[in-house]
This record gives sequence, structure tokens and C-alpha cells, in this order.
Amino acid sequence: MPEQKKPHVVIVGAGFGGIKLAKTLGKEDVEITLVDRHNFQLFAPLLYQVSTAVLSEDEIAYPVRSFFRDYPNVEFFMAKAQGVDQARRVLLTNHGEIPYDYLVLAAGSTTNFFGMESVERNSYGMKTLQEALHIRNHVLHMFERANKREDSEEERRRMLTFVVVGGGPTGIEEAGALSELVAVQKKEYHHLDFNEVSVKLIEATPHVLPMLTQDLQDEVVRVLRGKGVDVMLDTQVMDNDGNNLKLKDGRVIPTKTVIWAAGVKAVPFIAKCGAEVDRGGRIITDENLRVQGSDRVFAIGDCAHFQLEGMKRPLATIAPVATQGALVCARNIMHSIRGEALEAFHYKDLGTMATIGRGRAVIQNGSFKMKGFFAWVGWMFVHLLRLSGAHTNITVCLKWFWNLFSGLRLGRIITNIQLDDGKKR
Amino acid sequence: MPEQKKPHVVIVGAGFGGIKLAKTLGKEDVEITLVDRHNFQLFAPLLYQVSTAVLSEDEIAYPVRSFFRDYPNVEFFMAKAQGVDQARRVLLTNHGEIPYDYLVLAAGSTTNFFGMESVERNSYGMKTLQEALHIRNHVLHMFERANKREDSEEERRRMLTFVVVGGGPTGIEEAGALSELVAVQKKEYHHLDFNEVSVKLIEATPHVLPMLTQDLQDEVVRVLRGKGVDVMLDTQVMDNDGNNLKLKDGRVIPTKTVIWAAGVKAVPFIAKCGAEVDRGGRIITDENLRVQGSDRVFAIGDCAHFQLEGMKRPLATIAPVATQGALVCARNIMHSIRGEALEAFHYKDLGTMATIGRGRAVIQNGSFKMKGFFAWVGWMFVHLLRLSGAHTNITVCLKWFWNLFSGLRLGRIITNIQLDDGKKR
Repeated sequence: MPEQKKPHVVIVGAGFGGIKLAKTLGKEDVEITLVDRHNFQLFAPLLYQVSTAVLSEDEIAYPVRSFFRDYPNVEFFMAKAQGVDQARRVLLTNHGEIPYDYLVLAAGSTTNFFGMESVERNSYGMKTLQEALHIRNHVLHMFERANKREDSEEERRRMLTFVVVGGGPTGIEEAGALSELVAVQKKEYHHLDFNEVSVKLIEATPHVLPMLTQDLQDEVVRVLRGKGVDVMLDTQVMDNDGNNLKLKDGRVIPTKTVIWAAGVKAVPFIAKCGAEVDRGGRIITDENLRVQGSDRVFAIGDCAHFQLEGMKRPLATIAPVATQGALVCARNIMHSIRGEALEAFHYKDLGTMATIGRGRAVIQNGSFKMKGFFAWVGWMFVHLLRLSGAHTNITVCLKWFWNLFSGLRLGRIITNIQLDDGKKR
Repeated sequence: MPEQKKPHVVIVGAGFGGIKLAKTLGKEDVEITLVDRHNFQLFAPLLYQVSTAVLSEDEIAYPVRSFFRDYPNVEFFMAKAQGVDQARRVLLTNHGEIPYDYLVLAAGSTTNFFGMESVERNSYGMKTLQEALHIRNHVLHMFERANKREDSEEERRRMLTFVVVGGGPTGIEEAGALSELVAVQKKEYHHLDFNEVSVKLIEATPHVLPMLTQDLQDEVVRVLRGKGVDVMLDTQVMDNDGNNLKLKDGRVIPTKTVIWAAGVKAVPFIAKCGAEVDRGGRIITDENLRVQGSDRVFAIGDCAHFQLEGMKRPLATIAPVATQGALVCARNIMHSIRGEALEAFHYKDLGTMATIGRGRAVIQNGSFKMKGFFAWVGWMFVHLLRLSGAHTNITVCLKWFWNLFSGLRLGRIITNIQLDDGKKR
């Protein structure tokens, strides 16, 4: 571990918050160690495009070290954070302890199955690159298994029923992209009956995208249904044995594919940091983004519970909350080092946007609303601007246009085959 | 399985030979079933670029079905071929039997470790997409493990010594690309001593690329050494325990990375086809590309032993042999169906080319020789033309120019982490 006289800031997590923070603090006279179990920053909002074979994995995963070529004071340390000993001021990892002067928890979130064990065991999460690749491999493999290798229509329908649970942006985007993937597959399976294929979207409440106004919600459902997605609102999931998805109302959907996009919680490591967490496992911070009861530990992004006065709930687990928090956190660490008063975090809401398949999106920011093709163009530009690396922008932009105009899905390769007996080969 | 009155041609293997054959025969009045355990055609000559993080996996893997959108008589069947029962005229697969009227074995080759078990167990092959990804993940992970997580210089040097065995095109290209990857890494590891890093190329004979003239061989060695590759000619490998590579002359190279590009043999399935094979497991064919003793089974490409009269050895395991064989095989199947006399296969040698890292290559065709930058431009065009899909050409071409001018390696992400205890996470 580095021995230095400059204040040592340790950041856990190389997501939107952690990278932004390291880049901002990296310009100051401090030493920084950025810790993550992966060597890349994941552009999570586009995971659904990897899972549906639109983009390559390396287009949404950017090597962490590439951000810090010109920052000799920023060191990346690839390790899994395992806990914090606040008394000794050390971060515990699977590769040893890292002493800190200031620690920032930006460790992110994981899928929340709300305690439903059978659902967790037999459904696909959509939070990591590996999970997105598993979905891609599995969905493509289901078509191959159903095609000429399965005589029972019932079994074929089970293999070709793809269920997405959760009516937030991730669920909407996944269901839309899946329905388009089916359309691409249809051109290439000369002997498969595509009436046996279905894509379903299940949402527990009566509304998709609850942050939008009713007319935009209706537009989203209308477009999805137009693409052939069976949108099931007000429908709750109870159990999944890997072959049958059971609903609370007693109905059963025969399926081997349940993609769970219905909730997130903080990563389990956060519970081992010696501070209070909320029901979602998020660590509770004060208005300065410090963990309660600590003046050297901060938390930002998905793993932090930050509640503005007068608000009913904490800030959402979205990228702008993490990056805006990172800027305030960087300033507050420098204030702390200099013995100055800290700033309060004021979040500026940038609104909501979601694609509903290629060429269509919805955007809302306060009373500003937009839908259709131009909303999609807006969505595209915002995401291209936020992607890391000009080179990636070019290949991603090319692939989006090819996908728009020719339905091209270059990534339809099965790299990790799930055998019928459940073993990988 | 399809029941048809048209002659049913079953092709095992969707490589260069199998795809070319299916596209050619697909225009005739026959039914075709193309069998492969993978749903993509692999552009194997560029595997080394995936293993060194230049290209994405889906840029060298093209979905098989996409070739046959407009061929309703070509059906893809994803299965692992397990043997042939020539008496009953069926191909045996892990998903059942497939009856054929004509069968073509185009199943390709796998790595040949020449019976050295410890080398096979502890070295990396370079024949499949998974193997290329394993190499990429492993090499990148070695840098992360050596950086700040390892105190012993001896261990760090072991982790940072990368050995390629085999002085053919694959070995040359892998060693050159690895040395360039090291140069990219050097810009981003602020605390690692790059004097501890080395790339070695081991070749058992006194010559690299034996098909070239001596002056071109010397050029290749000179360029590789200029890039910092330790080229060890006339050096034979004996044993690899995963930490130490032992040579026949008694020397030991401490390393955790041995990439084996020193030989290929036919895939094991070929031995179960009921016909004679050579020492490399390749099935022996007559001048019409028929398997000896059979008038309904043909073999082409890497898995076939085809020896021209007066030649000392069979044709090489390279793409042009497979694709030229496919064209003759297609005609001979049609001749057989029509009761005509078969054609003999005459191979036209297109010469040899190999890159030695970005911006440099060697080309030889008979007395025509070329080296340096313009040979590289030639290499680039030939490979771009042969890649599948115009869209892939564009992204690959972009990445090659970025790599040439800025040393950019977008793919440096570790997606499958080998833990220190050998387990994956």
C-alpha cells in the first residue's frame, strides 16, 4: 500500500460516481486509490443492448486505468472490498488492507429479489456485464434448442417465452429490444413457427415508468404492445422454478427465461462498513454526503441513502445522482482537508428518458415532454455524449444506425453454451 | 430431422470450408443441413487480435444463420457431431441422428500438444474464441496481480513473463501483438517496473515461418526483436507445471503464461467416422476429396489429409485450402447426384502472409516478396475482404487504424476473473 504524506483518499467503486470523483479529486494535491473488483467502468444503462446483441461487451465497458493515464496520483487497485474498520481507518479487501485518510463508498447496487429465493435462483439479473452476456447466450440458445431439437409444442413454447419483470426504464428497454431481436431471428429460422414465440413484460403496479405523466406512460404501453410485447400491469410474481413462473393471482407462465429488472439494493459490502443502512441496504448519509457519525467516510450513488428535507424518499439510483454527488463529495473532502465548512448536496433533477426499442423514446423533465423519433434522437445523443471514449462513440453510433435501418444485430453469437443438463461447455 | 425427396447433404463444420460449401451447394436443388456446435463462423486468423484486446469477439464471429437468410434449403443445426455410421448413412450428434445422402466432413482442427500432458494442462491453446478470451483475461489479470499485490520480485517477473510457443504465422502474430499490448499497458501502470515484463517466442526449429525465404525470415526475427520480443530459435519445450516452463536443454523459464501455437491436429470426432486417418488425425481422401473407400462421404479443410501426387506432405491447414476444396466438393457432389465423373482437386497456392505487429508484415507468393508497411496494407485489405459482413469491415478497419496511430486497445477488460486459488468468479 502507498505510504505518502499527502492525504490519501480511497474510493470504493469505479462506476459513474467513483470515476467522476477520482477525476475531479485527481487534480488536487492528494493521493487517490480507486478500488474495484472489475478493471472496467460499466456503462450500465446500455447493458440491455449487450443482452440483446446490439452492442459488443467492450463498447459498454471501459478500462479504468485509461481514464487516469495522465494522473500519476490516481492508482487503481483491483480487489473486492470486504468491509471497513473505521476505528483503524482501513478498508478491508480480499487482497489486504488499505489505510485511508478519507474513504468514499461508491460501490453501487445489485439486483433486489425482495427475498424471493426461487425467483433469485432461477431468474436472470441485469446489473453486471456477465449477467447481460448470460442473457444473450441463453436467449439465443433457446431458439436453437426449440428449432428442430424439440418435438413437443408445449416445450417449444416454454423455451420461446421470454418474460421481463419490472416496468422501469431497464425493463421497458429490455422488453422492447427483445421483441426486435425476435423479429431479426424470424428472418433466419426457416422452419420455426414464430407464433410460438412471445415476449412478456410484467409490472406489479398499474403503471410503467411511474415518474412520467399518464399520457407518456400510455404511449410507452401502446408502443410496446404494437411491437408484440404482452404488457401485463398490476401483476405480481410469486415463484419461479426455472420452468414455470407463478403469479400471485394463481396464473402460471411456462417459461425458461425470466429477466428480473424489478428492483435494486446496495451491494452487500455496504452492510460491513460500520454504519446505519436503510431497508434497501443503502448507507445513510448527512446533507454533506458523510456517513452518519463519521467525518472521514462519505457515500455517493446507488449505495447511499440521501434524503432531502421534505422529500418522501431518498434520491433515485441513477447516474446523475452519482455524478452530481461526486462533485460535491470532491469539494467536501478538500474542505475537510483544509479545515473549512462543508457544503450541502443539492440535487438537480435532469428528468427521465427511456427508449422503447429502436427509433422511439420518451423524455420528460418537469413539464417538458417529448416522444417518438425525435425523443429517440435526443436519447441517442445524451447516451453517446456520456459514453467513455470518442472511439467507442463512433462504433456505437454506427451500430445504432445499422440497427435502426437494417435491424442488424452483429452480436448474435453464443459464447457460453448452457447444456440441457445445466452444465456449461 | 427433415424428410425430403431432394438429395440431403449434411455438412459438419461451419468454418471457411463448410460455409463456402453450403453457400455454393445452396444454389442447387438439394436440401442442406449444416451442423456445428457453435452458432457462428469464426474468423480464426484474427483470433490473436481478440486475445490481445484489439478486436471484439463479435467482430471475428459471424452468426451462421445470417449467411443463409435467403437460402430456405439450408438449415443450421446446432449440435456436436459425435461419429458417423456409414452403413446406415447417419451422422451421430449429441442431439440425435441425422440421415444423409451425402456427407461432408469440414470439422476443422484443434491444438496439438504432441502428447505432452503437462504442457496441455497448463498452457493456453489458441484455436477457439473462448481460448482467445481466456488469454486476454489472463494476460490482463497478470498485470493487475503483479501491480501492488505482489511483493516478491521473482513472483512479479513470473507473472509478467509471457511465452508464445511456435514460430508459424499465429505465433509470430501473437508475440508481436503481445509486445504492443505491453507498450500500451506501460502508459497506465504508474508504479510497475516494466523491466520486469518480457515477451518470449520459442520455436523448435532454427527458422520462423519455414515457408518463406531466408531473407524474409530474418526480417521477421529482426522486427520482433526490435519490438522487444525475445526470439528463441532451435529451442524445444519439454514440460510446463503452470509456474515454470522447462526446456529440453535443461533451462527453465519462470512463467504463468504459455500460449501454444506450435501445432494442430484434426478434431477427435474425425477418428469416429469409420475411415483411415493420418498421424495428425486427418482423414485420408482421394483426389476427388472423397474419404477413402466411400462414395458418399467427402472431407475438406483442416480435418482432411489431401496429398497431391509427387508432394512430400499433405496440403497445409489454411483457409484457402478449405475454400478451394469446398468449390470442388460442391461440384463433385452434384456430379455424383447426376451420375457424372468426378473432378480431381488441384490446389492453387496463394502464398503466405503474416503481420509482425501493427504496420508491418511479410508476403511471399512464389518469387514475389514484399515486406514492411505496404505489405501490412496488403495484409489488411486481404483480411478485410475475407471478413464476413460489410458492417464488421468498417468497425474492424477503424480499430486497426486507431491501433496503428494511437496504440488504442479498447478491449482491455477482464470479464472472467481467474482467482489466485484457481477458481473463476
